[in-house]
Amino acid sequence: MSESERRFLLGAVTMFNGSHAVHGIWRHPAFDRQRQFERIDHWLELARTLERGCFDLLFLADVIGAYDVYGGDWRASARYGVQFPSYDPLVLLAALAPATKHLGLGLTSSVFYQHPFPFARQISTLDELSGGRLGWNIVTSVIENAAHNMGMERLPDHDERYRWAEEYTQAVYKLWEQSWDDDALVRDADTGVFSDPDGVHEINHVGERWSVRGPHLVAPTPQRTPLLMQAGGSPAGRDFAARHAEAVFLVANTPEVAAPVVADYRRRALAAGRAENDIKLLAALTVVTADTEQAARAKDAELEEWISDEGMLVMLSGHMQTDLGAVDLDRPLADFETDGMQGMLAEIRARVPPEQRTALTYRDLLKGFWRNRIVGSGEQVADRLAEFAAAGVDGVNLVEMVRPEGFEDFIEFVVPVLQQRGMVQREYRDGTLREKIFGRGPRLPPDHPAVRRHPVGV
Amino acid sequence: MSESERRFLLGAVTMFNGSHAVHGIWRHPAFDRQRQFERIDHWLELARTLERGCFDLLFLADVIGAYDVYGGDWRASARYGVQFPSYDPLVLLAALAPATKHLGLGLTSSVFYQHPFPFARQISTLDELSGGRLGWNIVTSVIENAAHNMGMERLPDHDERYRWAEEYTQAVYKLWEQSWDDDALVRDADTGVFSDPDGVHEINHVGERWSVRGPHLVAPTPQRTPLLMQAGGSPAGRDFAARHAEAVFLVANTPEVAAPVVADYRRRALAAGRAENDIKLLAALTVVTADTEQAARAKDAELEEWISDEGMLVMLSGHMQTDLGAVDLDRPLADFETDGMQGMLAEIRARVPPEQRTALTYRDLLKGFWRNRIVGSGEQVADRLAEFAAAGVDGVNLVEMVRPEGFEDFIEFVVPVLQQRGMVQREYRDGTLREKIFGRGPRLPPDHPAVRRHPVGV
Repeated sequence: MSESERRFLLGAVTMFNGSHAVHGIWRHPAFDRQRQFERIDHWLELARTLERGCFDLLFLADVIGAYDVYGGDWRASARYGVQFPSYDPLVLLAALAPATKHLGLGLTSSVFYQHPFPFARQISTLDELSGGRLGWNIVTSVIENAAHNMGMERLPDHDERYRWAEEYTQAVYKLWEQSWDDDALVRDADTGVFSDPDGVHEINHVGERWSVRGPHLVAPTPQRTPLLMQAGGSPAGRDFAARHAEAVFLVANTPEVAAPVVADYRRRALAAGRAENDIKLLAALTVVTADTEQAARAKDAELEEWISDEGMLVMLSGHMQTDLGAVDLDRPLADFETDGMQGMLAEIRARVPPEQRTALTYRDLLKGFWRNRIVGSGEQVADRLAEFAAAGVDGVNLVEMVRPEGFEDFIEFVVPVLQQRGMVQREYRDGTLREKIFGRGPRLPPDHPAVRRHPVGV
Repeated sequence: MSESERRFLLGAVTMFNGSHAVHGIWRHPAFDRQRQFERIDHWLELARTLERGCFDLLFLADVIGAYDVYGGDWRASARYGVQFPSYDPLVLLAALAPATKHLGLGLTSSVFYQHPFPFARQISTLDELSGGRLGWNIVTSVIENAAHNMGMERLPDHDERYRWAEEYTQAVYKLWEQSWDDDALVRDADTGVFSDPDGVHEINHVGERWSVRGPHLVAPTPQRTPLLMQAGGSPAGRDFAARHAEAVFLVANTPEVAAPVVADYRRRALAAGRAENDIKLLAALTVVTADTEQAARAKDAELEEWISDEGMLVMLSGHMQTDLGAVDLDRPLADFETDGMQGMLAEIRARVPPEQRTALTYRDLLKGFWRNRIVGSGEQVADRLAEFAAAGVDGVNLVEMVRPEGFEDFIEFVVPVLQQRGMVQREYRDGTLREKIFGRGPRLPPDHPAVRRHPVGV
């Protein structure tokens, strides 16, 4: 394994809205840049900051509807600004692409959001314009309002959502990988051939949900298929990730919780016929840091005062599909099957002795969720990240308390320490996002299911 | 009428591909920037050039499938590079937005291309990021392959397409105009209210084709609804434009042809309950210019040598939905009902005495299409544009022979003359695209159907 493959990866995850993951802090008078979330100058500044910090990836999560479980509708998500309003991440990344040179640009897009044909075309266009720096986090929505926005009567159930996702990925893979031969865009002035028709193919996808004729309207881009990402935590989600994803976002706040999850993903990847190192596992972590431990603790205490409990309940009610405003929070935790919450649940449970686990309540879960941060000086945070690395985690997907300060602080105090220790890159390598992360590419490896040929027509 | 309302408007229309309207010229050895159409640096350069020339608008046309009538399939469009491949225009405009400050950014998007919810969200996002500089040309596709790409068995017929367009516009208007009150995004740090839920509304659109619940995920943008554009030439298309469009692109190569068309649009606008000056009419014109008439004629003669007759036939076969490779081109012209071709047909007919019109052939039409350019020095071109202005035309939508040289030449030789004559602006006025063009705004005027309230729920 080369040096570039072992290095610890740095991702920044946020959303194109005024409150991403830690709600209420937007009210703090100092944080005007986050409140004015729609201003492009703030985003250009953040992208350049991340590039200065040699971050691998700016990743924009997304929702395509308003959380509507807490209180039975979306009003509370509007009231507390919980990922609402939320603007289109692909449009923002396109605006950031020319202002950056190396930063990976990742986005979430649900298989419910767009028909595969225009989606694949927009992704290819942005992969081209960014010089092959695009990543796609494949998700299925879990918000009822999202289904209603897209004309569905109800949200499909969990298994049905994954069947949709399987078909959707097959359709877009065919457009990206099979519609154009590598050398078909000849634009030969002498012969007058712009594209060789024999090198361009219809895909003739006819599935349960979608039909797509093709050919793809975009010639092969630097990566063809963008870097594929996934965050599913359920068994079905992990299997999906093991088959498709090149990067997985873990919800695992301690190295102890992360280790078996990492091992499980790698095992599933092997079972799916892929190499276990073809999946990079990034832990979603929140860091509060400053020049000393004391200063970091003071900053953390101040930020915590601004957290809105109601705002957090609005979001978690959506994730858990349970109205936590109507639940006795001291009730024992039942098992629940929701993508993205399994890791958190496991992590909360791991913190208490086995005999006490059945007594864990909803309140314990909630506290565990938004009170679990890495707080300390740059050295201390670097120590903790090294423990994650030792547990097999490939990198961090940094979740901000406040934007952009959460990222700026990390770059000021933590990145130099990580660089000094040789844990992270000091400068970017050339090439596409896939090449930067894996040291190979720019295309998917041949054992990926997108590349194993599907039957397509002419 | 204020000065700003009377000035002659300058638009540049092209496409995100290697051959937009005049095919074959990409083979000329000097035109490498057009051949390398996917390079973002070329587009950034073009956008800055247009802004230097005080252009009102960079407009990107689009197709969502390959022309597939000539020869019975899409192979010839690939072979000759006729608008194929074609990349997503919205993604490109997003990339250009931060690099420009005043230039209007217009795009074609077919009502077949995206579900109204994600489309409205992407448009709103880009209107916000560009400071209110976005325009949308509402089209329905006329390419069978486009329908197949989007999962339809066949292209809906002409009238059905316009019914789709009516419903689609109603759905997106509701999202843009009615889902958010102007003052609902309060983000009040003291009360902790991010958005006032009482000022945010579901739209509950339930139509024949689409259902959209809402609320819209984007708060009101500078223009709310982007500047609305249309190019329909058929009677149904003109009625649609008269109801919806703020800018219309005419195919009318002479002032004599343009005058009655302009009058007809204004009459239809009045009949639709709008003010006749609420529609700006821009003639699509191709200009070849240089520092002298002689140099311009020499340039034109050289360019013409590079035109590919086959390439032109591929495109026109698509527009006319007639395989011109299989037609005797000396056959008399039958009437045909195709948007965008009526103006051209009228213009060809107007050039010959009435008694000879029945003898016009397909070959006459084709020649008329791609041999009709304004060729001359800056003074001569300005004289001709003044004749268009006298005929009631509000501006030009400049179609390039070759990109970017066609636009660069116009800015070098023609724009200074027009500026000296006071016909066009010397500097941009502040504000949104709508304010720049109409001297009022930034929102639609109250007599526009998007603003006349539709019934929506909470």
